[in-house]
Amino acid sequence: MASYTAPVRDTRFIMENVLKLGDRAGKPGFESADPDMVAAILEEAGKFASEIFAPLNAPGDAQGCTRHDDGSVTVPDGYADAYRQYCEAGWGTLTAPEAYGGQALPHVLGVAVEEYLSSANMALAMYPGLTDGAVRALLARGSDEQKALYLPKLIAGEWTGTMNLTEPHCGTDLGLLRSRAEPNDDGSFAITGTKIFISCGEHDIASNIVHFVLARTPDAPPGTKGISMFIVPKFLPDENGEPGERNSLQCGSIEEKMGIHGSGTCVMNYDGAKGWLIGEENKGLAAMFIMMNAARLWVGMQGLGQAEVAYQNGAAYALDRRQGRALSGAKDPEEAADLLIVHPDVRRLLMDARAKTEGLRALIIWIGLQTDLALHAESEEERQQADDFVQLLIPVVKAIGTDIGYDVATQMQQVWGGHGYIAENGMEQFVRDARIAMIYEGANGVQAMDLVGRKLPMHGGRAVQSFFAMVDKEVAQAKETKSLSDLAGALEKANGELKAASMWLMENAPKNPNNAGSAAYMYMQILGLVAMGLMWLRMGAAAAKSLDGGEGDAAFMQAKLLCARHFANGQLPDAGALRRKLSAGAETIMKMPAESFLRT
Amino acid sequence: MASYTAPVRDTRFIMENVLKLGDRAGKPGFESADPDMVAAILEEAGKFASEIFAPLNAPGDAQGCTRHDDGSVTVPDGYADAYRQYCEAGWGTLTAPEAYGGQALPHVLGVAVEEYLSSANMALAMYPGLTDGAVRALLARGSDEQKALYLPKLIAGEWTGTMNLTEPHCGTDLGLLRSRAEPNDDGSFAITGTKIFISCGEHDIASNIVHFVLARTPDAPPGTKGISMFIVPKFLPDENGEPGERNSLQCGSIEEKMGIHGSGTCVMNYDGAKGWLIGEENKGLAAMFIMMNAARLWVGMQGLGQAEVAYQNGAAYALDRRQGRALSGAKDPEEAADLLIVHPDVRRLLMDARAKTEGLRALIIWIGLQTDLALHAESEEERQQADDFVQLLIPVVKAIGTDIGYDVATQMQQVWGGHGYIAENGMEQFVRDARIAMIYEGANGVQAMDLVGRKLPMHGGRAVQSFFAMVDKEVAQAKETKSLSDLAGALEKANGELKAASMWLMENAPKNPNNAGSAAYMYMQILGLVAMGLMWLRMGAAAAKSLDGGEGDAAFMQAKLLCARHFANGQLPDAGALRRKLSAGAETIMKMPAESFLRT
Repeated sequence: MASYTAPVRDTRFIMENVLKLGDRAGKPGFESADPDMVAAILEEAGKFASEIFAPLNAPGDAQGCTRHDDGSVTVPDGYADAYRQYCEAGWGTLTAPEAYGGQALPHVLGVAVEEYLSSANMALAMYPGLTDGAVRALLARGSDEQKALYLPKLIAGEWTGTMNLTEPHCGTDLGLLRSRAEPNDDGSFAITGTKIFISCGEHDIASNIVHFVLARTPDAPPGTKGISMFIVPKFLPDENGEPGERNSLQCGSIEEKMGIHGSGTCVMNYDGAKGWLIGEENKGLAAMFIMMNAARLWVGMQGLGQAEVAYQNGAAYALDRRQGRALSGAKDPEEAADLLIVHPDVRRLLMDARAKTEGLRALIIWIGLQTDLALHAESEEERQQADDFVQLLIPVVKAIGTDIGYDVATQMQQVWGGHGYIAENGMEQFVRDARIAMIYEGANGVQAMDLVGRKLPMHGGRAVQSFFAMVDKEVAQAKETKSLSDLAGALEKANGELKAASMWLMENAPKNPNNAGSAAYMYMQILGLVAMGLMWLRMGAAAAKSLDGGEGDAAFMQAKLLCARHFANGQLPDAGALRRKLSAGAETIMKMPAESFLRT
Repeated sequence: MASYTAPVRDTRFIMENVLKLGDRAGKPGFESADPDMVAAILEEAGKFASEIFAPLNAPGDAQGCTRHDDGSVTVPDGYADAYRQYCEAGWGTLTAPEAYGGQALPHVLGVAVEEYLSSANMALAMYPGLTDGAVRALLARGSDEQKALYLPKLIAGEWTGTMNLTEPHCGTDLGLLRSRAEPNDDGSFAITGTKIFISCGEHDIASNIVHFVLARTPDAPPGTKGISMFIVPKFLPDENGEPGERNSLQCGSIEEKMGIHGSGTCVMNYDGAKGWLIGEENKGLAAMFIMMNAARLWVGMQGLGQAEVAYQNGAAYALDRRQGRALSGAKDPEEAADLLIVHPDVRRLLMDARAKTEGLRALIIWIGLQTDLALHAESEEERQQADDFVQLLIPVVKAIGTDIGYDVATQMQQVWGGHGYIAENGMEQFVRDARIAMIYEGANGVQAMDLVGRKLPMHGGRAVQSFFAMVDKEVAQAKETKSLSDLAGALEKANGELKAASMWLMENAPKNPNNAGSAAYMYMQILGLVAMGLMWLRMGAAAAKSLDGGEGDAAFMQAKLLCARHFANGQLPDAGALRRKLSAGAETIMKMPAESFLRT
């Protein structure tokens, strides 16, 4: 049976030693974020995740959700109680505004807590995770009345939220959507249509479910410019704001799927359901995109969560299972065999996992901080740069983070050998659960197109230019520290590949837009490598400083330096191969006639 | 619902245009292999696989196997009947010797047929696949009496075979195994012990199951030198060679696992079961290794099988699903959206899949031919070289083939977006089924160690030197053909990386064996890339020749050339990054203290 321990020490290292978050305490956006408070919250969140959420992960996967004939859905045993404890402890209120019952803590702390919950039980953590998306949409676009009516319930977790975008014939291409919204006399709308793949669309853990639904009003223009967003509660709030009349919407079925069995994936049928417009008519997609940045960071964080829990269990097995002998001679001659950890190929898997997971964690937490600074930074320059980095790197983190989640889960399953394929050991669940994160919230290929098609050209390439400059500057600084010079050199080289790939895009995409399309994924991978490499440079510098000063846990800091070097040795060289591959351009792949792809 | 069409045209292209198999017809080992006969068998096998095996793949996965209280196991509905048809059509007899009811056809044909069966239904194809392993073990080490008693039944498929190696405490490290074999007075042995992960260990599709069991005799030396192999039938053959008395062995339980649900994975309990020694006492591991080459090629072929069926369904979806518009402007303006196939990133996934799958198929079929030549080649020089290539490349094909199976299945699932995560569409089953092949029959990391530790140094590096020379020679030839010069140049470069990596190993492994261990996997990946690159060079040359001569299907040949170029552009550049990564050596990863891997 798999287990989970929240990596609080690693999170604190990033926040305290790398980001120096304490220096921001009391400043706008960080008013309540004093270091002791942050540390205490991380400790408590880690404890809550491992003690309350984690034990339900495997049984929830085995049991799954059940839909009944009346359209109701029962979640796995124990989920409702765990969710109740989540609400009672106020975990949903961390980063929400005080005006609606929140604690107004910075998002940088929120993402760290969400990682723990998601590691412990990805399916269960989706219920509050989606609610958080709904809260953000309302905060950004809801009327004062809507905010007052819905936000306190959603933030407290008494009600949960969902996002309803996909229809059977349209996922990525939302311009095709057909759900209709007919105006009623009272200012509300009658929503009719079928939505699919609605995570947590129906369940029995909260007294109401608030659906955020994209639909078209009667005179809406075709395509994406005619989509509006509506708030459609399962139970219409009565005059006291409590769940009243049942709305005409129902879960028509739930999907049998590869993983996240504890989260019901619903077909939602709206049959003239009462809903209210959020924000402006025909501006629904823009409103939905506001939620996207947060949601995509959250999904990238799901990848991190699965990578972390899989890594822990892979490492634990390698230090428990005895098989074979060390190549350099028996390490434990008194035992029948040595531990798996003596084998270099097992260590390679674990070090790869570690370097990717911790690099990703640092990147996600750093972007969490940038989302705070994009709202609250004291200077406009700092605010703008933070916002640029968020825009640029969110698609990268969503895609690279979820690729890493799946990859690390797969490699850690490999450490377990045949035992990793057996359900009761839990390793295969991490793989199945991690898989969805590469698909939903915009498939990873769509993230690559967002990066190359929208984010790179933004403001004349300002964001990526700032990014290059930041890397160059820190590389130059690091080269002066002997223990970092290897890593700095490797990062400089990878950043050179990124610049070359950027130049290639600038030259070749205007000639043929398919060159942007064929290169996009690999470009994104290079950017992800460089961004994680920068994080490792910062972590390496912080660890070296601690060691020099005789501060902190020396073994922990030594391990950081070794992982930093392994990232330089074992990951960054891929940047060159990726740049060479993308430079081949679109010609060959576009030349293949469509019908030649079919086997006949 | 996924579908399957056997890629007979592709197989025939490899056999006819690339390998010129027809030129060998009538020669030793290829007596019955005339081209029309081979083509007819491939067509029939493809039809059988898609019509009889494929329709049971998804329902078999959903239903799985059921163990009953008496230890019996029921396979999914329809499996027994499909298996009966398999036996009646004589598919199990293809490559077996005529003396025992076989057709004595070459193995190069056998592997192609096995690919189709495995693509169509990996779990069901395991029953005859494991039987084939048992047949080979008996052929190599059985007594004349054992052969006469068991081979006709196994080859006809009336009885099935299993391999019993793993025990709860030992998988890779078989030296630790504890199962005991006590001699009986009649020359048989009483086998006692628990074996786990026994694929197809118990079922209801054949009248007897013949277990090949590794165990220790009373005075056996410890470790791998004290292991003997026994034949332990479920029902003891009576005086007529028919199933008689029930032996004292039982399936104790079957595993809940990630995939291959139609193949029961059994815990087998032997309680003084009657068994007979195969071959010499204490030479069981060597006997088991005889089966290994064939079994490992077969498992690599399972990877190919899942890659192929996943590719077909990914491509079919990309030519059916409409979403978004081509970057260069609408392709089907009369439709609401263009087909997925217009998007370069989707084409990249499909071309990657195609280049890997077809390159792997050519490699596996070529190695199939080498296994025939290793037995039957007319000159000793040719025989030896064929045997060298088999020894060198079998671990590569097992590991790279199964990595490709999982990777392609995952990427093709990605083409389907959210619909790929839903069980009823079948894409996620390919991923779950493909996953096991990376683990069993020697985990892929173990294959890498076999390659670097045993196969490279064999005969003073003779095999890999021959391989280099073969690549160099064909590259030089291909450079003279204009349409192949790109590919030849890319392959030359990759082969240069392989040579450099080999040099690195020669210099650094003797200093520290951990350098061999840390480099092994990446070295194997480079060798796999070069071997597949060579196959693409041959396929490209054959396609160019057909086009020049106005022979064959021009569209098929054009597609081959495009895929060859995509392999050069999209895969071979990884060789350089892999070589750089392995050159970092073991220092960093071995320096990490074992306990630093644990999260605390």
